[in-house]
Amino acid sequence: MTNSDEFLLAASEILGPKGLTRDTAAMAPWLTDWRGRFTGRALALASPADTGEVSQLVQLCAQHCVPIVPQGGNSGMSGGATPDENGNAVLLSLRRMNAIRELDTGDMTATCEAGVILQTLQEAAADERLRFPLTLGGKGSATIGGLISTNAGGTQVLRHGSMRAQVLGLEAVMPDGAVFDALTPLKKDNRGFDLKQLLIGSEGTLGIVTAATLRLLPEIGERTVCWAGCETIAQARDLLVHCERELGDLMEGFEVMPAHSLAAVLDHLPDARNPLGTKHPWNALIEWVVPRSAETGLAAKVEAVLESALDAGLLTDAAIAANETQADSFWLLRDTIAPAERAIGPAMQHDISVPPAQMARFIEDAVPQVEARFPGTTAVAFGHLGDGNVHFHVLAPKGAAAGLWERTEGKTISMFVHDLVTRWHGSISAEHGIGQMKRDELARLGDPVALALMRRVKNALDPQGLFNPGKLVPVAPGAGSD
Amino acid sequence: MTNSDEFLLAASEILGPKGLTRDTAAMAPWLTDWRGRFTGRALALASPADTGEVSQLVQLCAQHCVPIVPQGGNSGMSGGATPDENGNAVLLSLRRMNAIRELDTGDMTATCEAGVILQTLQEAAADERLRFPLTLGGKGSATIGGLISTNAGGTQVLRHGSMRAQVLGLEAVMPDGAVFDALTPLKKDNRGFDLKQLLIGSEGTLGIVTAATLRLLPEIGERTVCWAGCETIAQARDLLVHCERELGDLMEGFEVMPAHSLAAVLDHLPDARNPLGTKHPWNALIEWVVPRSAETGLAAKVEAVLESALDAGLLTDAAIAANETQADSFWLLRDTIAPAERAIGPAMQHDISVPPAQMARFIEDAVPQVEARFPGTTAVAFGHLGDGNVHFHVLAPKGAAAGLWERTEGKTISMFVHDLVTRWHGSISAEHGIGQMKRDELARLGDPVALALMRRVKNALDPQGLFNPGKLVPVAPGAGSD
Repeated sequence: MTNSDEFLLAASEILGPKGLTRDTAAMAPWLTDWRGRFTGRALALASPADTGEVSQLVQLCAQHCVPIVPQGGNSGMSGGATPDENGNAVLLSLRRMNAIRELDTGDMTATCEAGVILQTLQEAAADERLRFPLTLGGKGSATIGGLISTNAGGTQVLRHGSMRAQVLGLEAVMPDGAVFDALTPLKKDNRGFDLKQLLIGSEGTLGIVTAATLRLLPEIGERTVCWAGCETIAQARDLLVHCERELGDLMEGFEVMPAHSLAAVLDHLPDARNPLGTKHPWNALIEWVVPRSAETGLAAKVEAVLESALDAGLLTDAAIAANETQADSFWLLRDTIAPAERAIGPAMQHDISVPPAQMARFIEDAVPQVEARFPGTTAVAFGHLGDGNVHFHVLAPKGAAAGLWERTEGKTISMFVHDLVTRWHGSISAEHGIGQMKRDELARLGDPVALALMRRVKNALDPQGLFNPGKLVPVAPGAGSD
Repeated sequence: MTNSDEFLLAASEILGPKGLTRDTAAMAPWLTDWRGRFTGRALALASPADTGEVSQLVQLCAQHCVPIVPQGGNSGMSGGATPDENGNAVLLSLRRMNAIRELDTGDMTATCEAGVILQTLQEAAADERLRFPLTLGGKGSATIGGLISTNAGGTQVLRHGSMRAQVLGLEAVMPDGAVFDALTPLKKDNRGFDLKQLLIGSEGTLGIVTAATLRLLPEIGERTVCWAGCETIAQARDLLVHCERELGDLMEGFEVMPAHSLAAVLDHLPDARNPLGTKHPWNALIEWVVPRSAETGLAAKVEAVLESALDAGLLTDAAIAANETQADSFWLLRDTIAPAERAIGPAMQHDISVPPAQMARFIEDAVPQVEARFPGTTAVAFGHLGDGNVHFHVLAPKGAAAGLWERTEGKTISMFVHDLVTRWHGSISAEHGIGQMKRDELARLGDPVALALMRRVKNALDPQGLFNPGKLVPVAPGAGSD
């Protein structure tokens, strides 16, 4: 028997017939990332039933030097869960581990296995009149394990923080198979290095998250959603600051989109309409929320804030959603930007942050620079202005060949955008992680001290380099690309 | 010249006359921790003026194998900043590096050097109508660097989180002298491992924090402080849950103290009085805060919450502070527990957390157990019930010899308390860190997988073991104590 036959035999003994497959059709959907940017191959698809099986499989992989690529809902944005083309790695799906082990209404925590889908957790919390305060477009497929491994963001970070802020405790299998059990609802714990923080956002390169204890909040009492039209992005930023000062404790989201994005969405959704009727260069979508038992009257407060903003010249026009249906329709416009753009043609997408106070100036500087340097392109920035994070998309010139354009000019454009962001002291990955897509850009632009530390931590915890190889950790200079 | 003479000569060249001393009188105050529990010796006291000098000194120490013990305000609770008795370490004070490099009112951030004193930052923020949302008793001496290195807590963690939650960016000098520069006001940044999280709470064993970018909040508009009397700690816990559900978003602190602690404080402060007049087995101190521009009327809301709590049998009596003076007098009672107890006699102090929902049952279980097992002692639990964290003090029997008692019976008591906490799935250090005081208890009770990971991370980042040796990192089994 070859090494790989021996390995597969032993793996099937650990995982049973439901837990291991080499069937091409069964594996195929999980070997390409959902954006279709990366496709890889795998020795097998492993779907362990519990943490013990993960641990045994990891030990077996260590013995046989088999790399492991962990995967949740396969909805990541940076190719972090797609294996490479060698075909020597096991693709480790956490989707079978989908139990909510405990939902503690007293401590307001949920202990979930890695494969629990975000929407499932949201619904389970709602059944107990609680809520999980993180959401994003892919909530129907994104898993808790994936959200933690990538420190996912979304549209409520402004008030509640990203995934890191929701994690109280963590369980993970380390590269030697040891189970790091730090599942706990403790709010305060200063017993040495906070190792779970190192695992959060490490994209499966240091440990495989198998479960987590997450904080929950009381359910929402009332929400008010408003749409505002602004003349400039600088005005939208001033509006944000005004709203933060006046009613910031209740503000849950502040998203912006330029006229171009709204037009694309309205073309894409035949039944949708512009909330303001008239066209504005910039649009802001703002949501305020009060917890359940707090007093009512939120809409009146929001109205007062918007009126004072109008008086101060911070917006041109604004509409408050009259009911939940209208509120949902406002959010649908926001959530449809990505598919509406994809329908137009190829685009290079960048998930960037700069110091929040400088975002308006950055956009005003970057958009014309990119469009001048790459004639025919359209640069569009939209998203989480409240977090100092926008999705900066550069749409291809009309008629550009999809696929080819991204690999050639697109790559140059991305480097140009990342250079700009770096000059503005920003981040080339605000919320999507590094994966395989941005690994070399991180190596090119990252602080050498930080990069060297990352490599050292990686080598210390995964000396064989078997956990999600080729992702996140920048290769040392001179070591070549793998 | 001996190695140490050579080292001192080179160090004085780097640091200049203001930056290095071996004067016994100048060094003495910094060689004993403020509680007087630990005293050490040092080769010299280094006080660098800037990050560059820290980096040069660290490189020099690496060359000469000289250990470094970083120190801020020397107000830590676990002896983490006190050198050992060998006298071969440099005591590295960050107190000279006390500049607020930038206070950005747009991004609401402050970039502070490690030696900035907490109260100084609070006052600088207030000057700009902002606030820094962390405070604690030692605010007049505790430094930003020390607060970060120990992930300090305090009385506002309930709403704002501990020090970790305030840190956006960090600058640190690593054991090879490299400057890890991650100073940034970015709210979102997923560029690989979040190394700053590893440094926060690592007590100077992995890196020396030299500066940080901290988040600020708008100043307070109005606060309402209330004192409630409860029959049992379980009732106080139910009151907490009620307040969280009804007005949780505005609740900033929820502290408890038993009748014994209040009596000790009233004995200790001749002018103080019991806010309720009558004695209750338990007292709760609750603070609510609204941001500046929010509507007023907080006191009325708090009154409604307290009335419904009274109706539900969750408290016996309650008083709302009529003005700021009275609010301060309520807090003074809370803040005087520690000195009032010290005036009574020796005590073993434990800073523990358990799952918040179980804290009442833990106290009901632990207090009689400890008092029965150690006749003559009095067990007292007080503090941050809202965080599931209390200070669990065991007062010596009357007439116990201070010093001797702590070293003999006291040590047995602490092990007993820590065993209890561990059985309740709690933490033996909720907010005070490990330092030298709890290092061996962490080694005894910590999860072996976590301990092994800590050692591996320590060895990877500080292979010479020169950064704060003997603190925090549990010694491997069989390696002996150092």
